[in-house]
Amino acid sequence: MMTTPGYDYDDPSLRPSPVTLDDLEKLKATVLFSSADEAALKTAGDVLAPQIDQILDVWYGFVGANPHLVAYFSTPSGTPLPDYLARVRARFAHWILDTCNRPYDEQWLAYHQEIAIRHTAEKKNETDHVDSVPYIPLRYMIGFIYPITATIRPFLTAAGHREEEVEAMFNAWFKSVTMQVTLWSYPYAKSVW
Amino acid sequence: MMTTPGYDYDDPSLRPSPVTLDDLEKLKATVLFSSADEAALKTAGDVLAPQIDQILDVWYGFVGANPHLVAYFSTPSGTPLPDYLARVRARFAHWILDTCNRPYDEQWLAYHQEIAIRHTAEKKNETDHVDSVPYIPLRYMIGFIYPITATIRPFLTAAGHREEEVEAMFNAWFKSVTMQVTLWSYPYAKSVW
Repeated sequence: MMTTPGYDYDDPSLRPSPVTLDDLEKLKATVLFSSADEAALKTAGDVLAPQIDQILDVWYGFVGANPHLVAYFSTPSGTPLPDYLARVRARFAHWILDTCNRPYDEQWLAYHQEIAIRHTAEKKNETDHVDSVPYIPLRYMIGFIYPITATIRPFLTAAGHREEEVEAMFNAWFKSVTMQVTLWSYPYAKSVW
Repeated sequence: MMTTPGYDYDDPSLRPSPVTLDDLEKLKATVLFSSADEAALKTAGDVLAPQIDQILDVWYGFVGANPHLVAYFSTPSGTPLPDYLARVRARFAHWILDTCNRPYDEQWLAYHQEIAIRHTAEKKNETDHVDSVPYIPLRYMIGFIYPITATIRPFLTAAGHREEEVEAMFNAWFKSVTMQVTLWSYPYAKSVW
């Protein structure tokens, strides 16, 4: 696979997350995430892998149709930044597969903390060397749980799995997205996270 | 209907929300919430109304089975507060129906801001005059999007609607829960909300 700029998942110098494995266990319990969900996500990864571009087309079509969302990939005066959109898209492709295939361990927590701060004034724009708006408001990260979950369902049916298997993959995806957005909310709330 | 302690939805002295109707429109667009969802929620309200106690039994069973969640209805030293649990439960019943039946207008925003601050150190415990822990961490409010959404689905099938109607009610519920948790996150993030 070609190197994707800014995709630092396996960078051993990533800072440890302030979120502990014990915090993660409690978060998993809160969204009812179990080993059955890990297995369903592995299957989902196989189903989604050949469809990554079509999934990203749906998500980018949605963002592109909403000026209040495109704004976060634009200059402060509102000019969209195509290179920035493209670089984030390449990392988003990894994100789909990482959601399905990576173990949810300390490295996962560390990279999600990195993703989290890249949404905030501490690090937005730095990875891609762009002059965009300074941060993404928390409300759109939480709001995105719906479209990123609902739009995946049709893609999960593409390999001919039975309805109950599709439902298991859908729920595992929903749980994982909810957990990841929760992790990304950390720098917005810190002591009351 | 008997008066429910602390249920102040229609209190004309509620402070206006810092979230504007324009913010709400953008949030609706982010979760793809439309007039079709309003209609589906109205139907869901009819379907769920006779099942409120059973729904709350499921949710309270889930909280009760998780010590890290019961803690927020307990004293700081960990003794559960049954009266507090019961008072919140009575308001939770209203919340189900309000989610389905209330217009999402300025009064809705105002009451959701009131709910929001009741999760935080500014006002937790005050409404019910209890000595519980000082706030609910943001992570469990976001995490709750999953169980509060997934567990409603079986109840939506109870009135014999067709699968596509159930699916429409489920998606409208999911969108609304996501929006409401987003509103409840406001006091945790404030200027970066």
